[in-house]
Amino acid sequence: MRIRVGCEFDYESPGITPTIWQVRPRADREQRLVSESWSTSPSLPWTSYHDTYGNVCNRLTLPPGRTLLRYDAHVEVPGVFDDADKEARQVPLESLPDETMVFLLASRFCLSDVLRAPAWDLFGGTEPGWPRVAAVCDWVHENVGFQIGSSNPFTSALDVWEHRTGVCRDFAHLGLTLCRSLNIPARYVFGYLPDVGVPPPYEPMDFCAWFEAYLEDRWWTFDPRNNVPRTGRVVIGRGRDALDVAMVTTYGAPILRTMTVLADEVGDEG
Amino acid sequence: MRIRVGCEFDYESPGITPTIWQVRPRADREQRLVSESWSTSPSLPWTSYHDTYGNVCNRLTLPPGRTLLRYDAHVEVPGVFDDADKEARQVPLESLPDETMVFLLASRFCLSDVLRAPAWDLFGGTEPGWPRVAAVCDWVHENVGFQIGSSNPFTSALDVWEHRTGVCRDFAHLGLTLCRSLNIPARYVFGYLPDVGVPPPYEPMDFCAWFEAYLEDRWWTFDPRNNVPRTGRVVIGRGRDALDVAMVTTYGAPILRTMTVLADEVGDEG
Amino acid sequence: MRIRVGCEFDYESPGITPTIWQVRPRADREQRLVSESWSTSPSLPWTSYHDTYGNVCNRLTLPPGRTLLRYDAHVEVPGVFDDADKEARQVPLESLPDETMVFLLASRFCLSDVLRAPAWDLFGGTEPGWPRVAAVCDWVHENVGFQIGSSNPFTSALDVWEHRTGVCRDFAHLGLTLCRSLNIPARYVFGYLPDVGVPPPYEPMDFCAWFEAYLEDRWWTFDPRNNVPRTGRVVIGRGRDALDVAMVTTYGAPILRTMTVLADEVGDEG
Amino acid sequence: MRIRVGCEFDYESPGITPTIWQVRPRADREQRLVSESWSTSPSLPWTSYHDTYGNVCNRLTLPPGRTLLRYDAHVEVPGVFDDADKEARQVPLESLPDETMVFLLASRFCLSDVLRAPAWDLFGGTEPGWPRVAAVCDWVHENVGFQIGSSNPFTSALDVWEHRTGVCRDFAHLGLTLCRSLNIPARYVFGYLPDVGVPPPYEPMDFCAWFEAYLEDRWWTFDPRNNVPRTGRVVIGRGRDALDVAMVTTYGAPILRTMTVLADEVGDEG
Repeated sequence: MRIRVGCEFDYESPGITPTIWQVRPRADREQRLVSESWSTSPSLPWTSYHDTYGNVCNRLTLPPGRTLLRYDAHVEVPGVFDDADKEARQVPLESLPDETMVFLLASRFCLSDVLRAPAWDLFGGTEPGWPRVAAVCDWVHENVGFQIGSSNPFTSALDVWEHRTGVCRDFAHLGLTLCRSLNIPARYVFGYLPDVGVPPPYEPMDFCAWFEAYLEDRWWTFDPRNNVPRTGRVVIGRGRDALDVAMVTTYGAPILRTMTVLADEVGDEG
Repeated sequence: MRIRVGCEFDYESPGITPTIWQVRPRADREQRLVSESWSTSPSLPWTSYHDTYGNVCNRLTLPPGRTLLRYDAHVEVPGVFDDADKEARQVPLESLPDETMVFLLASRFCLSDVLRAPAWDLFGGTEPGWPRVAAVCDWVHENVGFQIGSSNPFTSALDVWEHRTGVCRDFAHLGLTLCRSLNIPARYVFGYLPDVGVPPPYEPMDFCAWFEAYLEDRWWTFDPRNNVPRTGRVVIGRGRDALDVAMVTTYGAPILRTMTVLADEVGDEG
Repeated sequence: MRIRVGCEFDYESPGITPTIWQVRPRADREQRLVSESWSTSPSLPWTSYHDTYGNVCNRLTLPPGRTLLRYDAHVEVPGVFDDADKEARQVPLESLPDETMVFLLASRFCLSDVLRAPAWDLFGGTEPGWPRVAAVCDWVHENVGFQIGSSNPFTSALDVWEHRTGVCRDFAHLGLTLCRSLNIPARYVFGYLPDVGVPPPYEPMDFCAWFEAYLEDRWWTFDPRNNVPRTGRVVIGRGRDALDVAMVTTYGAPILRTMTVLADEVGDEG
Repeated sequence: MRIRVGCEFDYESPGITPTIWQVRPRADREQRLVSESWSTSPSLPWTSYHDTYGNVCNRLTLPPGRTLLRYDAHVEVPGVFDDADKEARQVPLESLPDETMVFLLASRFCLSDVLRAPAWDLFGGTEPGWPRVAAVCDWVHENVGFQIGSSNPFTSALDVWEHRTGVCRDFAHLGLTLCRSLNIPARYVFGYLPDVGVPPPYEPMDFCAWFEAYLEDRWWTFDPRNNVPRTGRVVIGRGRDALDVAMVTTYGAPILRTMTVLADEVGDEG
């Protein structure tokens, strides 16, 4: 399935503003790039590096005044819905692969250490493995209200736990935090999610967040915001939480005048 | 200078307890190993991996009952006091090396995003670079009281900011958090610190924590707990905060009956 | 199964001799360390780093005169014979995991580019996948004579191809080179191999070399020198060829007076 | 200084042809990207990975028939000539940074082990450090004849040493091999080199190769083919030799009908 993704930002910057960007799809085995373009107006040079999770980060310094940034890409993804295996077993802690261990630790927005007791109260009685993660997602989906504007850049999973409202970032944070509290490695995923195979009405397109949990012998996609299998996900980055994979990190106080995000299915020659 | 370091743990575990250990000095250019031994009673097999910061982590599963763990090493370190350069300049954000950027981000215990405003209130008037970091350290040293038992595994730099007491871990957390708020990359360091060249009385030896800030073209040691140059530091690990470089992470509820830490200067053939 | 491994080197060095060592078993999921010790006489400081393949390398500078170096460890390995699956399929080039691609390239001792034509002449008619790799191993085992002293540090797989004699390093080099020529990722493995379950007579113990080929979805052990399944292998390192995982690399001209290698099964409390 | 680089390949492939590409400039601190585009006709999906040296590799499978591939980019590089410091000292082996050690080892095309004796015969009398590397470059420049068509994909530095002809790849290979023989870490560099500040006549533009040697505390550019400081270099990749950083690696037998390379200075808004 071919997906067109992209985004456009219109900034007004009072002075020199260093920024870091993560908008490019990971070009790995699951999602292949067909074409891409990145442009800024005025034309600005940028550099690129990989963070400790292997995500691509672009560095760019905005000059004073107005800057337009635009990214577009065509991506080929498997035209299938999120994998599910209700038999997927929980891996005993001592058998977890080394590289999953970091995703058991608490992080800035995911205070799994603080939520340990309530997590076990709520989910300790469920069957370990897939059913336990599914129970977490069902609970978050049913108990947290989706409300644009209900969270801010400081909102942690603990806040979501307490206030029971949020956006997709917050649903993902709370879901993965509870998994970590239950000793299941879980990581935050950030990307594009087109409305493919979903009945209207559609909200305005935005970047999207979900999470992955490690069960049996691999990572599985879970999305407590939507809580139904979806197709067409395009991953930009993975990390401990939203702080590790921020769409844009700015050092300074630029005004974001408008932001547009695009994610659509297109024909094969689209 | 040759330093003998080591530690001994005596655990009573109600059941199978997976654990991760960081007790081994980093054997890099600055600190060379002369000898080391690691033993457990009963004899237990362990595996080893490197985390995303390059720290060595040992995995070990405690059986039910009592386990003794003991690590000993002789380390050769430069016999000099912490480097200082009052002229070291602050690096503009857009010129910072890529690998320092992660140490500008907030983390579980170091909420530099939350403390941004107070940090600028307090230190915005100081000269950028070395003087600014030194002002942070002086302030933490003078305003936070050292008190064993005043903090727990959940204590963040924000708590220390509010309550003004802590142990060396907390002094380091608050100092590095304020640096990050001021756009200076700062990372947590965990290791052994012998009482070399320090007048008595001595507290019981323990693991120690300080931080490093990036200025000019390198990382520099800062230690707001002691706030005087020291010699003989032996680094075990570096990370965003204490969560990344925990001496031991246990999954379960073993009782730590006793813990002993050792760090002493020894003669060259010691 | 618990294996005792170790080695001892006795060097006479005319001057300062920088050296790099690889003698320590990889402490990964498959082989767990129980105890280890490293000592030198005179007592010498060393540092440690990881090469690009994740192997541990120890750096050590020998002083003028005589130096003894000794490494000992107890390792827990699965008490099973080398896995085999005659149905394991060859992975089409375009589907190979990224991290296997480097093991398709020619290297200093493994000139798979030069041997491409003969490899296809000899093995192009065999069934792809496991049968093809097995055919390569059988051919090497039958056509190359084992002869201590028949090869030197410059001997490449091309030399072995031409002269048809070698030691285990050369058997491994030729086997893996032919696999690469046939578009099967293959890597050199270096370690300890005890005589467990093997009838006498025994040769004097030495370090050992074999190779791994990537089929289906994993790496498999192949050992054209012995060409029968073995148990008790303890891996020290993996790389493109013997150059990447040298037991010791010396810069200078020390005389190796004696070298002893040890690899034995021991009881559980051994 | 802004450089426009690019390349175009026209392939005729008899069947499915897996390929790996390295044509994209490294977007690091020294060279910043301003814009780039990559396109194929027919439109083909690709994936991307980083090799063990941090170079970007793109994987792409050519279908049977004709394929056009085109890459274009604008790059901002410092408008200065290659750095030189005739006082740069040679680093004693025991003090070399860990990450330089791999660039002392022999490799497929750079048999520094075989050329050790002649290297010391020729250059053992020169002053260590910068003068020694400069002497190597002068010698290669004067003793090897540049001749298109004189080398092939199998040509090693040993062949160049023996036949004394080659293209820029071969000049770089021989120069860096002699450095390694002399215990100076040296790595192969592959990229674009515009004819900026060079008097005509110009050869047809092609990819270019040079090498870097580690002296004092950093890597320095050396280019025995041109042997004069140049400006406008755009680095694509670095590795042990040309095998590690091949512009394109094909698995199959496609016919390359035409290849065009572009590297030009352009105005700031070019």
